[in-house]
Amino acid sequence: MSLLEPSRRDSRLDPYLDAYAERTHGLTVSAVRALFAVANRPEVVSLAGGMPNITDLPREALGRAVDRLISERGTQAMQYGSGQGEPFMREQIIEVMAEEHIHAHADDVVVTCGSQQALDLVTRVFIDPGDVILAEGPSYVGALGTFRAYQAQIVHVAMDEIGIQPDALRAALVTCKAAGKRVKFLYTIPNFQNPTGVTQTLERRRELVAVAKEHDLMIVEDNPYGLLNLESEPLPALRSMDADHVIYLGSFSKIFAPGFRVGWVLAPHAVREKLVLTQEAATLCPPVFSQFAIATYLAEFDWRAQIKVYRDMYRERRDALLAGLVENMPPGTTWTHPTGGFFVWVTLPEGLDSQAMLPRAVNARVAYTTGTAFYADGLGSRNMRLSFCFPTPERILEGTRRLGEVLTAELEMHQTFGLGTDVPRHFDLAAGPAPDIS
Amino acid sequence: MSLLEPSRRDSRLDPYLDAYAERTHGLTVSAVRALFAVANRPEVVSLAGGMPNITDLPREALGRAVDRLISERGTQAMQYGSGQGEPFMREQIIEVMAEEHIHAHADDVVVTCGSQQALDLVTRVFIDPGDVILAEGPSYVGALGTFRAYQAQIVHVAMDEIGIQPDALRAALVTCKAAGKRVKFLYTIPNFQNPTGVTQTLERRRELVAVAKEHDLMIVEDNPYGLLNLESEPLPALRSMDADHVIYLGSFSKIFAPGFRVGWVLAPHAVREKLVLTQEAATLCPPVFSQFAIATYLAEFDWRAQIKVYRDMYRERRDALLAGLVENMPPGTTWTHPTGGFFVWVTLPEGLDSQAMLPRAVNARVAYTTGTAFYADGLGSRNMRLSFCFPTPERILEGTRRLGEVLTAELEMHQTFGLGTDVPRHFDLAAGPAPDIS
Repeated sequence: MSLLEPSRRDSRLDPYLDAYAERTHGLTVSAVRALFAVANRPEVVSLAGGMPNITDLPREALGRAVDRLISERGTQAMQYGSGQGEPFMREQIIEVMAEEHIHAHADDVVVTCGSQQALDLVTRVFIDPGDVILAEGPSYVGALGTFRAYQAQIVHVAMDEIGIQPDALRAALVTCKAAGKRVKFLYTIPNFQNPTGVTQTLERRRELVAVAKEHDLMIVEDNPYGLLNLESEPLPALRSMDADHVIYLGSFSKIFAPGFRVGWVLAPHAVREKLVLTQEAATLCPPVFSQFAIATYLAEFDWRAQIKVYRDMYRERRDALLAGLVENMPPGTTWTHPTGGFFVWVTLPEGLDSQAMLPRAVNARVAYTTGTAFYADGLGSRNMRLSFCFPTPERILEGTRRLGEVLTAELEMHQTFGLGTDVPRHFDLAAGPAPDIS
Repeated sequence: MSLLEPSRRDSRLDPYLDAYAERTHGLTVSAVRALFAVANRPEVVSLAGGMPNITDLPREALGRAVDRLISERGTQAMQYGSGQGEPFMREQIIEVMAEEHIHAHADDVVVTCGSQQALDLVTRVFIDPGDVILAEGPSYVGALGTFRAYQAQIVHVAMDEIGIQPDALRAALVTCKAAGKRVKFLYTIPNFQNPTGVTQTLERRRELVAVAKEHDLMIVEDNPYGLLNLESEPLPALRSMDADHVIYLGSFSKIFAPGFRVGWVLAPHAVREKLVLTQEAATLCPPVFSQFAIATYLAEFDWRAQIKVYRDMYRERRDALLAGLVENMPPGTTWTHPTGGFFVWVTLPEGLDSQAMLPRAVNARVAYTTGTAFYADGLGSRNMRLSFCFPTPERILEGTRRLGEVLTAELEMHQTFGLGTDVPRHFDLAAGPAPDIS
C-alpha cells in the first residue's frame, strides 16, 4: 500500500520502485535507441542503424491503391479484425514463405505487430524466469532485450563462418542439462545474420536440424533478411526441413516497408493456438489497416520485382562498404563478407575497444554499433557492426574513410601510450577459414 | 530436452505441453472470440460485440488524404519510428485528452498498438504472479484476460449505479493487506463502463481519488468511451484530479476507427520510462503508418464534429435498445440506463441462466454476451451484456423482440418444470437507486 512512500523520503528515487514487477529489473536502455539519436544528426554518416532504404518504393501508385482501399473497403480495413491476422493476409504470407521452400498452411500463421512482436509472443509462451535460450554469439540486440525482459538466461553458442557450430550446440545442450537448466529453444538467424552477416550453408542447416531432432530441441528461426540475397538463390529455410522443431518468424519490414509493423510466426499447430490467445491478450488483433495495405500491395504490385530492385540497391551499398574497408582500415582489422542482408562484422586490431572509441568516432562524424550490444556476456569489445542498408554508397565510402582515420589515431595512441595487456574480449569470425562467398 | 516425447507416447496430447511457460496455463479461449464467429452470421442480430460503427467516416476524403500522405511523406510514414510513439502524435493526444480536463505533457505519453496493448504493457510492468489487481465487478473481459495472462489475482470491488463504492474499495484494500497480498492497482472504467454502462459521478470520482491518495494506491483509468457521452458534457477524468496516482489509457478506436490499432498510456514520468523500454522489447515501435494516418485525420478533418456525428448515431441506437427492452422484456427483468458508450447490463428474472440460454437465443437469431465473462469469480450467470453500437436501430428493436420471446419461453419452462432453488449468482445494478441519468 505504500506505493509512493519512498518519494516522500527521497525525491531522487523513482517513487514507484517497490511496485514494479520483478521482470522490469532486466530492462535497460538499448544501445540501438541511444544510437538512433546520434544517427539522426545529418552530418554523421551512420553505419549504426538497421533501417531499410525504402525510397525505391512506387509511392505514387501505392498512394492511389491505398486511396481506393479506403474508399471501397474502408469499413473493413479500419474495423477490428481477427486476433490471428486476416485470412487473406495469412494466405499471402504462405506464398512469400514458398520462396524459401516452406510449404505450410495459413491456419498455422499468426500475424504480429512486426516480427519483434513475434519474438515477444514466442518468448512469452515458452519462457519462465531462469529458462535457457541458446543463441548465436553474437546475436540480434533486440532479441536479447526481449529474452531478458522475460528473465531468460541467454547462453551463446559459438559460430564459425558458416553459422552455429553443431558440436558447440550439442555441448551447450549437455552442459545446460547437467546444470539442471531447461533449454526452451535455440534462437537463430540463418541468413545474413544480425550482426555478423554470416549465412548457414545448406549442409550446416541440415546438421542443425539433425541436432534439434536428436535432442527434441525447438529452433526459433528468425528470417527478416532471407530474400535480400545478393549472390545466389535463397537457401531453403530450416522450417522447410522440419515442421515440428522449427518456429519460423518472418517480416515485411525489409522486403516491403517497416512502418506498417507486420510480421508473422509460423508454428506447429498446438503452439500456434497458444500464440493466438497470447496475441488476443496483448493487442486484441494485430494492425488491421496495415494488413489490408500490405495485402493490396502484394496483390496489385509486382512485389518480386521490387525485391530485385532492393537487392540491386543493397548490393551496390555492400560493395561500397567492403571496398571502403579494404581501402581505409588499418592493418590488423578484419571483417566478414556477407552475401546478403544489411551487416558487416568488424574485428578491430588488438588493444582497441569499440565502446571506448565511439565518442571519438561520433566526433569524427561516423557512427557504428558496438560489439558488446550483441552479447549477453560482455564479449564483443573489439567488435563493431557496420550496416550498409541506409546511407548511399558515396556516404558509406566517406564513412569508412572517417572510421579509418579514427582507427589509425586510436592505434597510434595505443602504440605511444600502451593501454595494458589485450584481453581477447572479441569474436573474430573473419580470422577463421575463408568466408563462404562467391 | 524431451520437448516432443509425450507426442510419441500419445498423439492426442499437445506435444509441447511440458515446454510452455507457467503463465500459459491461465490462457483460455475468450468468450468474445467465440462470439465473433456467431455474430458474423448475417441472420443473427448481434447485441454481443463491441465493434464501433464506422460507416459514417468520410471515407473518400480520407482516402485522398492518405494518398497524399504516402506520396509526399511515405518514406517517413512507412519507416521505423520512435518506440514511444511519434512526437507529433503524442502532441495531438494531449489535445484529445484536454477534452476531459487532462493537462499533461507529450513526454509522458506512450503510444501503443491499441489500448489493449496499453493494458498489456502496464500489467507487464507492475504484475508479478499472485499480485492483486482490484477491478469493478463486473469488468471488461479483455482486461481480465490480460490480467490472468500475467497470473494476477483479480479481486472484484462492488459497484452501485454511480460506480465503484469507496467503502468497498477501502475494505478490499484492508482485506488484501491483512492477507499479505500486494495490491498493485485498481483497474476502473469511469465512463459508460464495460459491461454495465455505469458512469462515475464527479463526487464519486473525487472520493475514489481520495482513497487512492490515502492508501497510496495506483489507479489504472481505462477510458475508451469517454467522448461518446450522449447526455451531457464529458466529466473530468480521474487523471485530471491526480497525476501521481493515475495511469490513464486512451484509444482512437471509438472516436475514430479501431483498425489502425492506436491507443496510448499517460503515466507518471518514472513509470513512462519503464513502459517505453517494455514497448521497445515488445514491438520496437507501435504502428508508424497508423500514427501518420491518424495524425493526418486529426489535422485535416474536423474530428470533434465527427465525434458529434458518432454521438447522434449511438444515441439513436441506445434509445432503440432501451425502448425495445421496455417493450419486450418479461416482468422481473431489469437493466441499466447508460448515458453514453456502447453497453446495457441486463439482470434476468430469477431462475434464468444467461449462459445456459445462449444456444437457444442464437437459434432464435439473437446474440448477447453472457454475464459470467465479466467476472473472475463465477458471478454473472443471471446477467447479460447487450451492446447497441453496431446494428441499426431497426435491427436492435428486432433483436429485443427475439430476445423477449426467448426469455418468455425460458420463464414458462422454468415455471412448468422448476429448475431448483435460485442461487443469486448475479449482480443487479438496476435494482439499486434510480440510475444517474437525465
